[in-house]
Amino acid sequence: MSIALVIPDRKLDQLQQKLQQQLPDVLIEIWPDIADPAVVEMAVVWRQPAGCLVNMPNLKALQSFGAGVDNILADATLPDLPLARIVDPMLTQSMLQYLQGVVQHYQLRLDEFSAQQRKQHWKPRSPRKIQRLCILGLGELGQAAACHFLQLGFVVDGWSASLKTLPGIQCFAGDEQFFAAVSQADVVICLLPLTPQTENLLNQQRLSQLKSGAILVNVARGAIVDDLALLQSLDSGQLAAACLDVFRVEPLPSEHPFWQHPAILMTPHISAVTNADTAVAQIAENYRRSQAGLPLLNLVCQQRGY
Amino acid sequence: MSIALVIPDRKLDQLQQKLQQQLPDVLIEIWPDIADPAVVEMAVVWRQPAGCLVNMPNLKALQSFGAGVDNILADATLPDLPLARIVDPMLTQSMLQYLQGVVQHYQLRLDEFSAQQRKQHWKPRSPRKIQRLCILGLGELGQAAACHFLQLGFVVDGWSASLKTLPGIQCFAGDEQFFAAVSQADVVICLLPLTPQTENLLNQQRLSQLKSGAILVNVARGAIVDDLALLQSLDSGQLAAACLDVFRVEPLPSEHPFWQHPAILMTPHISAVTNADTAVAQIAENYRRSQAGLPLLNLVCQQRGY
Repeated sequence: MSIALVIPDRKLDQLQQKLQQQLPDVLIEIWPDIADPAVVEMAVVWRQPAGCLVNMPNLKALQSFGAGVDNILADATLPDLPLARIVDPMLTQSMLQYLQGVVQHYQLRLDEFSAQQRKQHWKPRSPRKIQRLCILGLGELGQAAACHFLQLGFVVDGWSASLKTLPGIQCFAGDEQFFAAVSQADVVICLLPLTPQTENLLNQQRLSQLKSGAILVNVARGAIVDDLALLQSLDSGQLAAACLDVFRVEPLPSEHPFWQHPAILMTPHISAVTNADTAVAQIAENYRRSQAGLPLLNLVCQQRGY
Repeated sequence: MSIALVIPDRKLDQLQQKLQQQLPDVLIEIWPDIADPAVVEMAVVWRQPAGCLVNMPNLKALQSFGAGVDNILADATLPDLPLARIVDPMLTQSMLQYLQGVVQHYQLRLDEFSAQQRKQHWKPRSPRKIQRLCILGLGELGQAAACHFLQLGFVVDGWSASLKTLPGIQCFAGDEQFFAAVSQADVVICLLPLTPQTENLLNQQRLSQLKSGAILVNVARGAIVDDLALLQSLDSGQLAAACLDVFRVEPLPSEHPFWQHPAILMTPHISAVTNADTAVAQIAENYRRSQAGLPLLNLVCQQRGY
């Protein structure tokens, strides 16, 4: 009976310690230092190297260490086992705080005033009129964001793969309704999961369907946006600005044009970070459930990708 | 019976038109084009040139065109008449939105991430812990700000010239309690009126009483802050950052060091602008009151200065 923590490039001592406190009788090891792969029954995974789980013949369950699972499903050798993700109310809270702060940043024109300041240019302007938002992706975070902005008094539209029903929010679904969903929004917020269907979804053609002068916020995954198409949309003025917290490659390589683009506000993937305590509680609970033969909490559909 | 609009350097056609609609029987003139100064009974003033009211012998009331009156009281020849100011709920709303946006800007470290972006530097950090705020000045706007941030979950202290009582807010007053008011605050927000007592109030000595690493936000008047002392406090690291919407001279002269200081976020006096419609309604009402011998709305104590 053991749990393997397969999360490369991260210090895991604290996580191991906290999880040990919750599960005192279970051996918890940090990959690649696994004494006996045959006794590992659960793997906690995040950006695991392809193939590293294949020599654990008695795995019963997989637990993502984050809310997304695209990096886990990218491993073609991933065993076909129940896969759960972390659903963290604190993470949702931190995402909402980020999004509200970003929307207010643009409402107050802090982007324009910062640029003016660097040029020693004094030009008072009234706040940007941001009244209508579109949320792409209506999962946990997308729904929470839609409701949050609705409560703040915004008109909110939502778009997702399959049609959702949310009180007070006009919901759209599928490719044929993309234009209707985004074409009136002052700010479009991307909270989609990364799947083969959403990779490069925001390409030149779809970005051109946004309202002229709209602002794009991507807090989902970098690969959902076609980088070159975004740059072209900003340069042509079709989009007024973009706030990016996620990138195709992270950290973003230093030669990437996003860094120095005047209309891009970059943050280093900080909009929503998994809280260790919440994660530990959910991992421990799912370990107990898997031992008892109960369904895991926050199960992911491997085929659907979220 | 006439009203004189004494507001130099501003286009007043719209204000004149709107006010005329409210008071169809009253002559409304734009200074300096006053046909007969002897029939002017009310002057609407903002940054009026010294002495321009002395040849209006039948003035009964003065009406500031804004919320502050320091620029009006700076005129030593100002007649000793009832002086009212504008109290605008929309102005309060716009001030609260500004302050909340600025606090979120610092919580999300958008200041640090913008600086990192310019250096192509990727360094994730969790949000700044901003939990305790101090509001300097507990007039209309100060009280509204204190209550607003209290509702958002912050611990709020307040400081003013005379002691106030506000539910849920620890209030301090006078010079001897300044240290107690500011010394624990993560962010200090200045909403004081500019008076001879508050000019240069935030000097080297008082800025040094703020918590190390605190952030100063000035949305009141530039002359309340000693510019050089502020620069020294930022350079020494005593203050982490300052957000300034108001300046000793506006527009800020291009040679002023605030423009290029990396720890200063500047906005061009946009945190709260008088809404013309609200102003028109209050000017018209105060004209009627002054004609009827009733006390003006939103009277200012000339001696106290607010």
